[in-house]
Amino acid sequence: MRRSIATVCLSGTLDDKLRAAAAAGFDGVEIFENDLIAAPLRPERVRERCDELGLSIDLYQPFRDFEAVGPEQLERNLRRARHKFALMRRLGADTVLVCSSVSPDAVDDDDLAAEQLHRLASEAAEHGMRVAYEALAWGRHVNTWRHSWGIVRRGDHPALGLCLDSFHVLSREPEPSGIADVPGEKLFFLQLADAPRLDMDVLQWSRHHRLFPGQGAFDLTSFTAQVLAAEYQGPLSLEVFNDVFRQSPPDRAAVDAMRSLIALEEGLAGVPELVRPDARAELSRPPAAPELAGFAFAELAVDADSGPVVGRALASLGFAHIGQHRSKPVQLWQQGEARIVLNAGAGDATGIAAVAVETDDPGRSARRAQELCAPALPRTRGPEEADLTAVAAPDGSSVFFCRTGADPASWLSDFIRTGDASTSIAGISRIDHIGLTQPFDYFDEATLFYRSVLGLDPRDDSEFAAPFGLVRSRAVTDPKGRVRIVLNGSLLRRGEWAPDIPDPQHIAFHTDDIIATARTLAERGAPLLRVPDNYYDDLDARRHVDPDLLADMRAYGVLHDRDAHGEYFHCHTELLGSRVFFEIVQRVDDYTGYGAVNAPVRMAAHRDTRLART
Amino acid sequence: MRRSIATVCLSGTLDDKLRAAAAAGFDGVEIFENDLIAAPLRPERVRERCDELGLSIDLYQPFRDFEAVGPEQLERNLRRARHKFALMRRLGADTVLVCSSVSPDAVDDDDLAAEQLHRLASEAAEHGMRVAYEALAWGRHVNTWRHSWGIVRRGDHPALGLCLDSFHVLSREPEPSGIADVPGEKLFFLQLADAPRLDMDVLQWSRHHRLFPGQGAFDLTSFTAQVLAAEYQGPLSLEVFNDVFRQSPPDRAAVDAMRSLIALEEGLAGVPELVRPDARAELSRPPAAPELAGFAFAELAVDADSGPVVGRALASLGFAHIGQHRSKPVQLWQQGEARIVLNAGAGDATGIAAVAVETDDPGRSARRAQELCAPALPRTRGPEEADLTAVAAPDGSSVFFCRTGADPASWLSDFIRTGDASTSIAGISRIDHIGLTQPFDYFDEATLFYRSVLGLDPRDDSEFAAPFGLVRSRAVTDPKGRVRIVLNGSLLRRGEWAPDIPDPQHIAFHTDDIIATARTLAERGAPLLRVPDNYYDDLDARRHVDPDLLADMRAYGVLHDRDAHGEYFHCHTELLGSRVFFEIVQRVDDYTGYGAVNAPVRMAAHRDTRLART
Repeated sequence: MRRSIATVCLSGTLDDKLRAAAAAGFDGVEIFENDLIAAPLRPERVRERCDELGLSIDLYQPFRDFEAVGPEQLERNLRRARHKFALMRRLGADTVLVCSSVSPDAVDDDDLAAEQLHRLASEAAEHGMRVAYEALAWGRHVNTWRHSWGIVRRGDHPALGLCLDSFHVLSREPEPSGIADVPGEKLFFLQLADAPRLDMDVLQWSRHHRLFPGQGAFDLTSFTAQVLAAEYQGPLSLEVFNDVFRQSPPDRAAVDAMRSLIALEEGLAGVPELVRPDARAELSRPPAAPELAGFAFAELAVDADSGPVVGRALASLGFAHIGQHRSKPVQLWQQGEARIVLNAGAGDATGIAAVAVETDDPGRSARRAQELCAPALPRTRGPEEADLTAVAAPDGSSVFFCRTGADPASWLSDFIRTGDASTSIAGISRIDHIGLTQPFDYFDEATLFYRSVLGLDPRDDSEFAAPFGLVRSRAVTDPKGRVRIVLNGSLLRRGEWAPDIPDPQHIAFHTDDIIATARTLAERGAPLLRVPDNYYDDLDARRHVDPDLLADMRAYGVLHDRDAHGEYFHCHTELLGSRVFFEIVQRVDDYTGYGAVNAPVRMAAHRDTRLART
Repeated sequence: MRRSIATVCLSGTLDDKLRAAAAAGFDGVEIFENDLIAAPLRPERVRERCDELGLSIDLYQPFRDFEAVGPEQLERNLRRARHKFALMRRLGADTVLVCSSVSPDAVDDDDLAAEQLHRLASEAAEHGMRVAYEALAWGRHVNTWRHSWGIVRRGDHPALGLCLDSFHVLSREPEPSGIADVPGEKLFFLQLADAPRLDMDVLQWSRHHRLFPGQGAFDLTSFTAQVLAAEYQGPLSLEVFNDVFRQSPPDRAAVDAMRSLIALEEGLAGVPELVRPDARAELSRPPAAPELAGFAFAELAVDADSGPVVGRALASLGFAHIGQHRSKPVQLWQQGEARIVLNAGAGDATGIAAVAVETDDPGRSARRAQELCAPALPRTRGPEEADLTAVAAPDGSSVFFCRTGADPASWLSDFIRTGDASTSIAGISRIDHIGLTQPFDYFDEATLFYRSVLGLDPRDDSEFAAPFGLVRSRAVTDPKGRVRIVLNGSLLRRGEWAPDIPDPQHIAFHTDDIIATARTLAERGAPLLRVPDNYYDDLDARRHVDPDLLADMRAYGVLHDRDAHGEYFHCHTELLGSRVFFEIVQRVDDYTGYGAVNAPVRMAAHRDTRLART
């Protein structure tokens, strides 16, 4: 499919936007009028610039408050339209978007609207242009796609057609029907946007909270399939108004946008009965996401200060230092199937540098990532080292694709064995989840990255009041819950989550018996995070907890949560080095969350402990 | 009046919050349960800490989902309540807030709710406690203050009373009546919060967008007057859930909060018929805000690079360098009544360092500021220099109170005369307005600062999509429009408004003939900002403009806006130094705005010009 993007999706001046769209591989753009007006480039020069960049100008938008007006206003509107047709000719654009009127002066008269749009289309046709009429969800009289289609039908002019915008349609009607019955030649344009489901004024929702497909809650696959079933021939074009994307680096946002369309096309290819054969052939089909069996390892970048601290902590958690890298200052620690790589050669950054997943086909995982705009990172590799492919995640960490043990050249063979991990000293059996704090601008990009590249599903969205500001949290997991990554990010704050403490990251380990594990850890001198007694008093007030269990929980700083499916017990280490901590979790029955309700308590305790140490 | 603040208003751990509240002069706090639970301080220690800080604990909150439940749940809820009464005894708090139930299990039965609350109040009384029942605006069955009052009446227990929260009341009913008729002894607690009027889910509105009184759109003066008329005897207590305040430095937010209550009390003192005499005597009455006659001057901090650039620009705008400071590297420039002070001795900061207003009583202005938590800044002053009082505005700039000319020791006498400003070379007659970019965290604080300290009124709120993100803009002006300050701030972005350009600030000068002024400026070589031709093409398309006027506007980069009251013409200089520019404006008839609609065009042009220069 041809892919377009509206300039309004991206930050910067018009030239910044065009360059970013072209660099990300878009075929065309919708030019938003305000971007053109503010640009020093004359229309002819914009056209040349787009030609240089290989971009077509698929839509000029928007033209507002045209139809259903009195005769004098109509003349003024037609004068304005003629100016815009002349401008579009200079731009080399042939389709103008006309939004349904929001003017309080608009008359509620479909015949009048249709007649005036017919007149506009006639003038457009004289200029070799056409008019795509779109129902805004907050249009004064016309605010459903069906109503706009009725008016286009009545308008009955070859140069008058429909623009469908997924937000305007799906915000009002989550499961629309009938779109497939519209004749394809009357579908002039398709604009795509996702969004979270929010209970707010639809105009504000639309202007601030749209997302790229796959980042929100709308069913864009079914919607787009219907449009393709109607034999729509135009591009898939993104039109996303989003407060964050408006200020993020446009090159990144454009890549994120492109990834969203490729993933959408992959989804469309999965419902072939809905898509006509010629369109089906045009859809991107990246190699399917291989099944993930769990985490192969997590890699922590450490420096001269944090390395020994983290090493001692791992030892106290019952991990064994089982391997030393052949050529790099890298240690491998293991307990059960939980493996941690400490990398002292990655510069001075400390934190989670990489997440390695077990895939049954690392090569296919890498090819899929590549097709989803996440190319393999260049890596230097020694002659005897395994060929591990890594791609960059939005937060700057790497994702490795591994097949531990099964490959003749497993990544494990890069390590000279220095110890034995055969006994699980503290009952830790595997990594339960990894918590990554996302930079403010890239939270939604991260969702789509993990969803599309790794095939994980977003779930368990939460938002909580932490001591130093609101935090949003979202898990992405594989269907079997073997790879769970929790994305955390500030709702507003940039920079540090608390004064003088960088955004924390964590690795959570699984145990089947939290109290036994915590007791072992305490005996081994693990730096367990102390939880305030007030927490346990409140837990006791809220529900009856066995006094012995409560005493143990209090002694080891074990927190508790419950959902409809089960219970969750978890304890934490103090911050190790500047920003990393470990968590131990026990899931009882089918608890699906991550104890977000307790995060404020843990964050306050981390801050208090850090203050007490310094 | 006694003044309290809920710990939820402030950022940090419980200890951070208590310290900030005490430092700002609050008498008491409401302790939010989550803050206590996350604190390492045991309740006795919290009580001691509050004693040390001179704070009473006026409310423990909240207790949720208590009433209108089945008998088994009631027993569980009473068990929980007993735990909390025991906790409150340790804390030294005697009032617990019970919010109307939001549980789907709650029964719609006022008699049952009243009976169960009676039972809770009986138990509370045994512990020497009392229960303040509050209708949440989104309560399952009870969501108006009147309904909660009906239940409290039916509950009929001396230890059962009402908590009124201005948000819950005014979000549903902007002009409530009948509150004054509630017996004072049944009004156990009053929580105050302002908010902007937003069309969204009331729970989200409440949790994210509350503001301190005077920062939003609610009529808190009338509301609070009604509560005082009912002979409420408790504190004025702030309960503000705000995403920004949750992450701002708590010391500043607490001062902002205190200022809001003092200003509210001043407003209450202005409606004496509504307030009982003993309460009236307790109200703060800062000296009234003196009338402002305009700007005395604006001071720009310049460095070795920007000083000559700004000086040359002022000369090209027709300003004369009329004075040199007796003891400091400070120049005075003037045209008409517009005066600019260039200060090369203020460190390396460049930007608007101070705004000086003409007041008919500088001493009173300073005393008012002092009482509104804006104490005079310490200044070094030479022996012959005028005694100019300055206070700090939230963005770090200073506000000076001046009485130019009229005082025997006018600030003008600090300058040795070096030139003459008798002719207004370019038709500039005065400063029209000053544009100050606010740090993200302090936008609402700034509104209240200018509103309360200077007596300016907020108006002309706007929000627009600039090339590098959304910008919010709000003017604060005196009733006669002689002192106009425009506060701009990013809706999300921290740091620079565009890559590599610090947040711009500007000073706008008034002219009666923009074209004549602009022509003179062009002849004098002023660095006028070039506006894209595309802008004028669009202006021509939107409305018929006289071709000669359009040609002149295009030649000099004059932009245009129109509102219901008149028209606005304005042009700009390029950025001078790193972040300051000048604007020239002509207001036709009674145009009240600031051309915000054109700001994106101007911002893009500033960026393009800056890029072209570097």
